[in-house]
Amino acid sequence: METFQFTKMHGLGNNYIYVNMFEENLNEADLPRLAREVANPYTGIGSDGMILICPSEQAPVKMRIFNNDGSEALNCGNGLRCVAKYAYEHQLVSETVFKIETLSGLVEAKIHLSHNQVQAVTVDMGKPRLQKKDIPMDGVPEETVIAENMLFQGETYEITALSMGNPHIIFYIDDIQKAPLTTLGPSVEKDPRFHDGINVEFIEVVNQNELNFRVWERGSGITQACGTGACAAAVASVLNGKSPRGEDIIVHLAGGDLIINWTEQGNVLMTGPAEVIAEGTYHIR
Amino acid sequence: METFQFTKMHGLGNNYIYVNMFEENLNEADLPRLAREVANPYTGIGSDGMILICPSEQAPVKMRIFNNDGSEALNCGNGLRCVAKYAYEHQLVSETVFKIETLSGLVEAKIHLSHNQVQAVTVDMGKPRLQKKDIPMDGVPEETVIAENMLFQGETYEITALSMGNPHIIFYIDDIQKAPLTTLGPSVEKDPRFHDGINVEFIEVVNQNELNFRVWERGSGITQACGTGACAAAVASVLNGKSPRGEDIIVHLAGGDLIINWTEQGNVLMTGPAEVIAEGTYHIR
Repeated sequence: METFQFTKMHGLGNNYIYVNMFEENLNEADLPRLAREVANPYTGIGSDGMILICPSEQAPVKMRIFNNDGSEALNCGNGLRCVAKYAYEHQLVSETVFKIETLSGLVEAKIHLSHNQVQAVTVDMGKPRLQKKDIPMDGVPEETVIAENMLFQGETYEITALSMGNPHIIFYIDDIQKAPLTTLGPSVEKDPRFHDGINVEFIEVVNQNELNFRVWERGSGITQACGTGACAAAVASVLNGKSPRGEDIIVHLAGGDLIINWTEQGNVLMTGPAEVIAEGTYHIR
Repeated sequence: METFQFTKMHGLGNNYIYVNMFEENLNEADLPRLAREVANPYTGIGSDGMILICPSEQAPVKMRIFNNDGSEALNCGNGLRCVAKYAYEHQLVSETVFKIETLSGLVEAKIHLSHNQVQAVTVDMGKPRLQKKDIPMDGVPEETVIAENMLFQGETYEITALSMGNPHIIFYIDDIQKAPLTTLGPSVEKDPRFHDGINVEFIEVVNQNELNFRVWERGSGITQACGTGACAAAVASVLNGKSPRGEDIIVHLAGGDLIINWTEQGNVLMTGPAEVIAEGTYHIR
């Protein structure tokens, strides 16, 4: 029977089976099937998918993400933090600041150590894109969507929308416990004014450096954490004058905290945990 | 950080984290919490629960089952097969026929080898109990429930009901693909005439030694496999003259096949697969 070594890791509950392709030799043609197999919660380990940590010609490591349906994804913020931690702890890199190659380009990662343990990881999530054509949504293509009035289910809401590579809409609410996730979430997600659907985020401003956050994810519904959503929430709060540019903003998600900083240079940095759950030998069916 | 060694195994998709308590030393008071932790699909390995393989004074091994809510269960047919396979492959027993202690008593297990590999395991599921008071349900306590007419949702069905330690009701249908799982299942499960609720099984008789099977499980809904349900289906088919006593009856479940034999001596034997998914080191949070 064939086997390979794996590590299961998670970032705020976003969990993958990680395979070190510096040591393992999985057949390219088998990868979609293997991802579905290991991700199956009944007959596999169970996960959101499988992430390969591969050699790269452009960086110390390359990340490849296979969703649990076998499709290959471009990027994943929670996965990037785990790859960075793994690469550092397994001496695939020797520095604490290094680049990771992804299908959507090179991403910079920074390891935060405490007593020689990886405490947190910062990854560069790139620049937000603010124009309607970037989201994409109805309206004048070059306009931004900051505190714009929109009608949903017969009520007017003041919303902000932007792209972090994927589309986000932000609603400010007074009490995060009353976020209308299941009532407003599904209908806004599929509102035809957003051409690719949209991730729906509800934000309670605790103070200028602290946001409470709940998300209805496009295609997934309520989830514990959405890295790009946390970035979008912080960017929206800067755009609306609720939070400062170039400072750390703590975003409290259901699955834990992320620290987001929309730097003066324009990129959004996301800092958060990466946890090892288990490691061992997987038996291929 | 504390760790322990684990093996994830499944029988027809019914999957647990197995811990060898001959080698590991987990604190009794921590077990419910640990079961919830490892069973969590996001921040743990993910499973239906945790099964401990322990020393026993009455048998080579003792099985303790913790559900993923932390509660301790009495017994689990799919789990028993995995425990038997594990015990044999890890030399906790040397014979191929041996007893396993469970909270509901001693159970006999038999290992089937092929080329020195464990191919399947037979476990003794005990005697069916056929009286209304055993199920328990309305009516004369000592009566059996074989091909009895009952009204559900305004229609009369000819049903058979019995207990395999837990309650089962069997409906015969002509085409398993048309089993009314979601329409009839939930209302029959909670019908007040069954005092503890009931597992709802739909059976298509392929021939006297072969049944197609679908189940609406009490408390779980549609599942891939229900070991006691497969036993109940075979017993019901013998009681209704559709299948022979003392012969192997293949039951085709959504998750795979089980072979059930209601022996002349009165006990029900269940034979099926037990599969190792992965083994390794779990990091306690």
